[in-house]
Amino acid sequence: MQERQTQSHTGIMAPRIKALYLLRCDARSVEGRARALAVEQSVEMPVTAIDDAFVLAEVVGQVEAIAEKEPSLFEVRIALAQDTVDNDPGQLLNMLFGNSSLQDDVVLHDVELPPGLAKSLGGPAHGLHALRRRVGACARALTGSVLKPQGLPPAKLADLARRLALGGIDYIKDDHGLADQVYSPFRARVEAIMEGLRSLDASNGRRAHYVPSLSGDLDAMRGQISLASAAGVDTVMVAPMIMGWSNFQRIVRENPHMAFVAHPSMAGAARIAPTLLLGKLFRLLGADAVVFPNHGGRFGYSPDTCRALAREALAKRDGIRPCVPVPAGGMTSARVPEMLAFYGADVMLLIGGALLEARAHLTEATAAFVAEVHRYAYN
Amino acid sequence: MQERQTQSHTGIMAPRIKALYLLRCDARSVEGRARALAVEQSVEMPVTAIDDAFVLAEVVGQVEAIAEKEPSLFEVRIALAQDTVDNDPGQLLNMLFGNSSLQDDVVLHDVELPPGLAKSLGGPAHGLHALRRRVGACARALTGSVLKPQGLPPAKLADLARRLALGGIDYIKDDHGLADQVYSPFRARVEAIMEGLRSLDASNGRRAHYVPSLSGDLDAMRGQISLASAAGVDTVMVAPMIMGWSNFQRIVRENPHMAFVAHPSMAGAARIAPTLLLGKLFRLLGADAVVFPNHGGRFGYSPDTCRALAREALAKRDGIRPCVPVPAGGMTSARVPEMLAFYGADVMLLIGGALLEARAHLTEATAAFVAEVHRYAYN
Repeated sequence: MQERQTQSHTGIMAPRIKALYLLRCDARSVEGRARALAVEQSVEMPVTAIDDAFVLAEVVGQVEAIAEKEPSLFEVRIALAQDTVDNDPGQLLNMLFGNSSLQDDVVLHDVELPPGLAKSLGGPAHGLHALRRRVGACARALTGSVLKPQGLPPAKLADLARRLALGGIDYIKDDHGLADQVYSPFRARVEAIMEGLRSLDASNGRRAHYVPSLSGDLDAMRGQISLASAAGVDTVMVAPMIMGWSNFQRIVRENPHMAFVAHPSMAGAARIAPTLLLGKLFRLLGADAVVFPNHGGRFGYSPDTCRALAREALAKRDGIRPCVPVPAGGMTSARVPEMLAFYGADVMLLIGGALLEARAHLTEATAAFVAEVHRYAYN
Repeated sequence: MQERQTQSHTGIMAPRIKALYLLRCDARSVEGRARALAVEQSVEMPVTAIDDAFVLAEVVGQVEAIAEKEPSLFEVRIALAQDTVDNDPGQLLNMLFGNSSLQDDVVLHDVELPPGLAKSLGGPAHGLHALRRRVGACARALTGSVLKPQGLPPAKLADLARRLALGGIDYIKDDHGLADQVYSPFRARVEAIMEGLRSLDASNGRRAHYVPSLSGDLDAMRGQISLASAAGVDTVMVAPMIMGWSNFQRIVRENPHMAFVAHPSMAGAARIAPTLLLGKLFRLLGADAVVFPNHGGRFGYSPDTCRALAREALAKRDGIRPCVPVPAGGMTSARVPEMLAFYGADVMLLIGGALLEARAHLTEATAAFVAEVHRYAYN
């Protein structure tokens, strides 16, 4: 108590998280609505009923700025106390958008974290440069493909992986639907695929790294990582919005040698800006690579959103490694030059279904995709 | 393989999850869009590239019905293979809405689970009747209040709890922003509050149960439950959308003597129907009580949504206990008769800020709220 009061009496403010929201409301009510939002995401009670000086000075959310972006759409900057988050990622999400996610006039648009909090979250343990080194790709874009459909048994998935690897692909990930199902249990799948890839060690497919998808609760995932490590896996995929942010960060920290690809499943991007959620926050939580829906595929992200998201994932940040942007979702080999022109070399191109459509010619289709990426004239 | 093929060859279909989506699109394109949705939430690749008979028969999502609800708004029923979920709650969310959550023309509206899957998820370990018994309330509505604002130290929160308890309240929960912050660490808070409540044992406040909010990763929550149990706590609160469904179910199963209140933080109800998410699914995952925004408060749920949500939480379901609906979010004592007429006795009324506004008269305001609930003429 003593210390708390001194702090607010001296006027030394503790660090604040700056959260930017887009509010849809009329100009006359925006100030009141912005204040209500600041209260909702902090003390969540009438400010008039608070008599604690520390809470009033240091904990109540503060509206710092309101800017009209277009008629009836306002960008509101709210300063939230870092102490309410206390370095826990789940609590960060709770404080940024927990209750407000239930209100349909507001979108969480961007967040500026105090340097201490960003450093504490830590970001990727490996990131772009390590993912390049692992496959011997110094400057070109990385290539990836996907094992699917779910329902196939381990032997068939292993066969697909082997043929993709023979085509020279860098990373082969599980489709995000693959979990620990009876028709393809995690252990049997990982062992079959890794054995299939090892058999290629002396030939062309040596480079391919298999990226299994983790599922279940934290302990189930720990068991899966342990099985995968034993089988030689060095990269896994998780869906942070399904496993929970705190658990994501926990498993990242427990496995410093493992690289993590973040999948956007349940990222419900209509309410949290994709650039913020996938590009900035997933990276800060520890994603070495982040899959997101590329423009012109099966999802509605615009080119501007995709560019901003990729830039955010790669942006220079003190002490935080760059995260590999992985645009995906209905991509084809025909789009490779256009995508490389758009994203540059700091990207992993991921083509799944369009390669599998080649069926018996999967290896050849993969090789053509890989060749296109390798021969591209990177600036 | 042998068994799988036999299964599809005999035509005996494995159980399917029936997912109902609302699609916004024009009538000419709805059939194609519905098929694309069924593919997105199952095999996520061109069906023409699949040659496995089992996958085609048993795993590819099937469009079962399309009904126009209003111009350009269609209800689409899609049958998803239960085997893709395999009883894991996180994977259930992934298969119901993982990728489609990224598409802004679709809302997950309802789900019918096969009886085996519902039974495996299990529902509340305690539910309505146990939460009544704990406080000696046979037939009336339950009462609850909230400890806030965050930022207060344990001693001040304990003082609030004691005064609420003296007013005769049944349950006193942490505000959902309270975590394990420096100004009020979980352990110190729980111990101070439980000690304060114990000191009332011989007097009026005997009934009150304190419900602390858990935060952090699964292991952190385990530690918090263990501390809380040791201090005499029998009910805790969690936010399933922040901790992840698999971890929620895990912690419910590990703690059969603990009752769980589910908080809607990050439930982003604009994209998943609140009745489904909060009323049906949180209950199936193990919530003994579920907090949701009541109509006419700070959130935009309609009376119809609130009524449907409460009914769903209480609906008779084979082997699944009823979950207590907890309408909240800006409620006042003045609304008690209206809310009881609306919800009946199977409800917990939760008033937070409006009681705290009474400041020095908190106990009297609480007693008035409690008396209103106790003397109501329940049918």
